[in-house]
Amino acid sequence: MKKEWDTIEVLRHERHDWMNKLQLIKGNLSLNKVDRAKEIIEEIIMEARQDAKLSNLRLPQFASTLLTCNWESHHFQLEYEVMDSQIFHRLDDQLLTDWTEQLFETLDSSIEPYQENHLSVTIEPQEKGIGFFFDFSGIIKDKNRLESFLDQKPGNMMKIISDGVVEGELTIEVFMETL
Amino acid sequence: MKKEWDTIEVLRHERHDWMNKLQLIKGNLSLNKVDRAKEIIEEIIMEARQDAKLSNLRLPQFASTLLTCNWESHHFQLEYEVMDSQIFHRLDDQLLTDWTEQLFETLDSSIEPYQENHLSVTIEPQEKGIGFFFDFSGIIKDKNRLESFLDQKPGNMMKIISDGVVEGELTIEVFMETL
Repeated sequence: MKKEWDTIEVLRHERHDWMNKLQLIKGNLSLNKVDRAKEIIEEIIMEARQDAKLSNLRLPQFASTLLTCNWESHHFQLEYEVMDSQIFHRLDDQLLTDWTEQLFETLDSSIEPYQENHLSVTIEPQEKGIGFFFDFSGIIKDKNRLESFLDQKPGNMMKIISDGVVEGELTIEVFMETL
Repeated sequence: MKKEWDTIEVLRHERHDWMNKLQLIKGNLSLNKVDRAKEIIEEIIMEARQDAKLSNLRLPQFASTLLTCNWESHHFQLEYEVMDSQIFHRLDDQLLTDWTEQLFETLDSSIEPYQENHLSVTIEPQEKGIGFFFDFSGIIKDKNRLESFLDQKPGNMMKIISDGVVEGELTIEVFMETL
């Protein structure tokens, strides 16, 4: 199920993404929109900082899953934000990753493909663990499937604090205890 | 000996390299040197094209070795160029990679660290195989070690066509037959 990324493939996708960003800067410069080009550069730097923060969470499998998600043919676009924190937790990376991949799979089979489907993940380190907030907006076609996935208990160290599915909107709040 | 790169590490290095490039563009824009910024973008695009051509040679291990080489703590900087070609060969990727890694190792132990050491690799697909031209310039401190490495036959499908070590300069021409 899970694609194992090799170095060449990772670099190929990454190169493709960066070329797109560079073309955007180049395009604005050739239209003499220097200020817009500068803004785009700042946006790219902010995004890269999120990637760096995600990579520094000491959750290598979970971070890989998020970092490569938009290269896989999912029916949604992923974005993420990692809140600043000085606290470092050791979590069950495998459990978190397995659950997240199951969520992605369930989403793929519950939403309408080729629509404006967005999944936003906010990661918030707290005192006794890390909170994960999943916000989906888009076209949900199988609410029941999502609900039955959410009815399953993820595991001992991981709890679904709250969840809600309404038309076109899904929110899940997950808390994962430190090991 | 060989470091196995994982996704997180590959992306970390790649992000670092791209951030440096972006800072260069940003720096020039903030000095109002828009033309220089455009030139830098063109140079980056050319480099990325070389990476793409290298990745398309169907030599995944060899390409990975070259693409990640500057992230390892070698005593030289690597650059490469892949000549345009419509010919695609199936080569012994493992043999080529093993030999190239041995060359890198031999170089590391034969040259003066912290100097301006550069290794340039030109890859030229030909009718019956691919030619590889290795050009080193820098400070060689152990000519004998390099020569004894070059005296070894790489393998049946791979031949050292010519080589030469003179002060501060090493050139090796290798030809690899199609399988």
